[in-house]
Amino acid sequence: MRIHLLTLAIAASIALPALAADAATPAKQKSAQAIIDAAPASAWRDLDPANTLYMELASGRVIIELAPGFAPEHVANIKTMAKGGFWDGLNIYRSQDNFVVQFGDPDGEEAGKAKPYPAGTQTHLPAEFTRSDNGVHFDRLPDVDGWAPQVGFVDGFPVGRNPKTGKVWITHCYGTLGAGRNNAPDSSIGAELYVVTGQSPRALDHQLSVVGRVVKGMELLSVIPRGPAPMGFYTDPKLRTPIVSIKLASEVPVEQRTPLQLLRTDSQAFIDATEARRNRKDDFYTDPPGHIDLCNVSLPVRETMDKAARK
Amino acid sequence: MRIHLLTLAIAASIALPALAADAATPAKQKSAQAIIDAAPASAWRDLDPANTLYMELASGRVIIELAPGFAPEHVANIKTMAKGGFWDGLNIYRSQDNFVVQFGDPDGEEAGKAKPYPAGTQTHLPAEFTRSDNGVHFDRLPDVDGWAPQVGFVDGFPVGRNPKTGKVWITHCYGTLGAGRNNAPDSSIGAELYVVTGQSPRALDHQLSVVGRVVKGMELLSVIPRGPAPMGFYTDPKLRTPIVSIKLASEVPVEQRTPLQLLRTDSQAFIDATEARRNRKDDFYTDPPGHIDLCNVSLPVRETMDKAARK
Repeated sequence: MRIHLLTLAIAASIALPALAADAATPAKQKSAQAIIDAAPASAWRDLDPANTLYMELASGRVIIELAPGFAPEHVANIKTMAKGGFWDGLNIYRSQDNFVVQFGDPDGEEAGKAKPYPAGTQTHLPAEFTRSDNGVHFDRLPDVDGWAPQVGFVDGFPVGRNPKTGKVWITHCYGTLGAGRNNAPDSSIGAELYVVTGQSPRALDHQLSVVGRVVKGMELLSVIPRGPAPMGFYTDPKLRTPIVSIKLASEVPVEQRTPLQLLRTDSQAFIDATEARRNRKDDFYTDPPGHIDLCNVSLPVRETMDKAARK
Repeated sequence: MRIHLLTLAIAASIALPALAADAATPAKQKSAQAIIDAAPASAWRDLDPANTLYMELASGRVIIELAPGFAPEHVANIKTMAKGGFWDGLNIYRSQDNFVVQFGDPDGEEAGKAKPYPAGTQTHLPAEFTRSDNGVHFDRLPDVDGWAPQVGFVDGFPVGRNPKTGKVWITHCYGTLGAGRNNAPDSSIGAELYVVTGQSPRALDHQLSVVGRVVKGMELLSVIPRGPAPMGFYTDPKLRTPIVSIKLASEVPVEQRTPLQLLRTDSQAFIDATEARRNRKDDFYTDPPGHIDLCNVSLPVRETMDKAARK
């Protein structure tokens, strides 16, 4: 009894658009995957090597897109630290189930044991919890959200927006990369970083500086053994996961890069694929929710064969 | 720079109740954890051994609470199969990142290779996607939800409710246990089961028969290596995770049981702890969301020292 259960990502299907759901003869529509597969080249954008990190683990490469539009000072500092090899030989020292993995220098607070920051590292930065929505292109989702007045995408990142305050911020979805801090809002510099591996902890939104998100390789971080409750810091240092290196993609030889493309969140293909998921109806799914949560929207990524993309 | 970041589960904190947020001198309130720690014995309920499964893996015990109030026929069948040792020696044959693990008989659809069902197993059951809310005690959350008109708890399980249809259903949160099926709604019998390990896939709500949820041991399932995309079925059978056994707790000698208690969702402690998380404000969190998502509400579980609870 191998079940076809839960074929969220594959298989041809029929999706009824929301507005046509009660039409007499609704047109057959493509599945989200079929829409993505048929997207024109113009619907895809190249990941910018100057804003991409490669985190190399023994198990493989985790690829991170940085968000300089949201946390410019943190991102600049992270680039300085990556160029200086700060994380090379450090480790993932925390894994809390259904929450985050966290990495950096486990001895960072111990004088004499802390790894020195590379030359040029800023040791104090302002909090970058939100940015102004002034002049920002916002791809809004129509769906209700309990955590934010509006949700959607900016620069391809999932965001919340408050029109009253004029602020937008990257939301804590699966794969979101944030900068750990102490109690003071301006106590993060990007040296200690966390990646969301559990149910989206949106209660953290606009309370930490979010610096990017994982676009490939989450399955390498999500399986890291959990540390002891409640917070997942390993008591046995041997259980930490070593980081071989974290480098900027632009600092890696072209032939060693992973040329990725992301589907533009303002493309018709993205809009249509999201709608196909919001109102999925096919041989398996017969009761469409008519809704999608921001953190359930998948952000399609593909490896391009185009050598020119390795620019 | 060991950061205090993200101390969701610990540390004293001050929480302002929603209605008192603008009061001149809000009273200091306890953290969610302090509220739970101070809950009276009457706020806790014993897990019923007759509706509890122990899934034994080499890495430890996963404890599942069954939901006979929602899927009585599936639960009865699962008990029959557990008593007959159906899953003993079978395996977890699927792990899809940010979605589910799935277990049972990977050869279940192959005549001649499929493991026979134990005597008494029903090979056809009705779909049990929802139940009537008639006479059901519903602990409603005030929070908005995009997937369901109302959300809250029934029998301690997270649920959605539609007052217009008079239906309630267990929602697909982290740890939810559901019965895999083929396209026909009545094609599940509980032999093939899945557990949610990723961002809550609420689009599955009321489209599958949900039979329970994991109350302890999720960290053993969540780290299982992911199978290949898109669906996570292992192509190499050696990568499957063996199941030593799945037994009803009531069939296990008393001294080998894990006596657990769950915080009642109708207790004042549960209500207060949820409110403390909804409006968390302390030295670290300074911008309370005033909201909590159903699938972000934690369901406190504790091991009791009370031998009487091993009844």
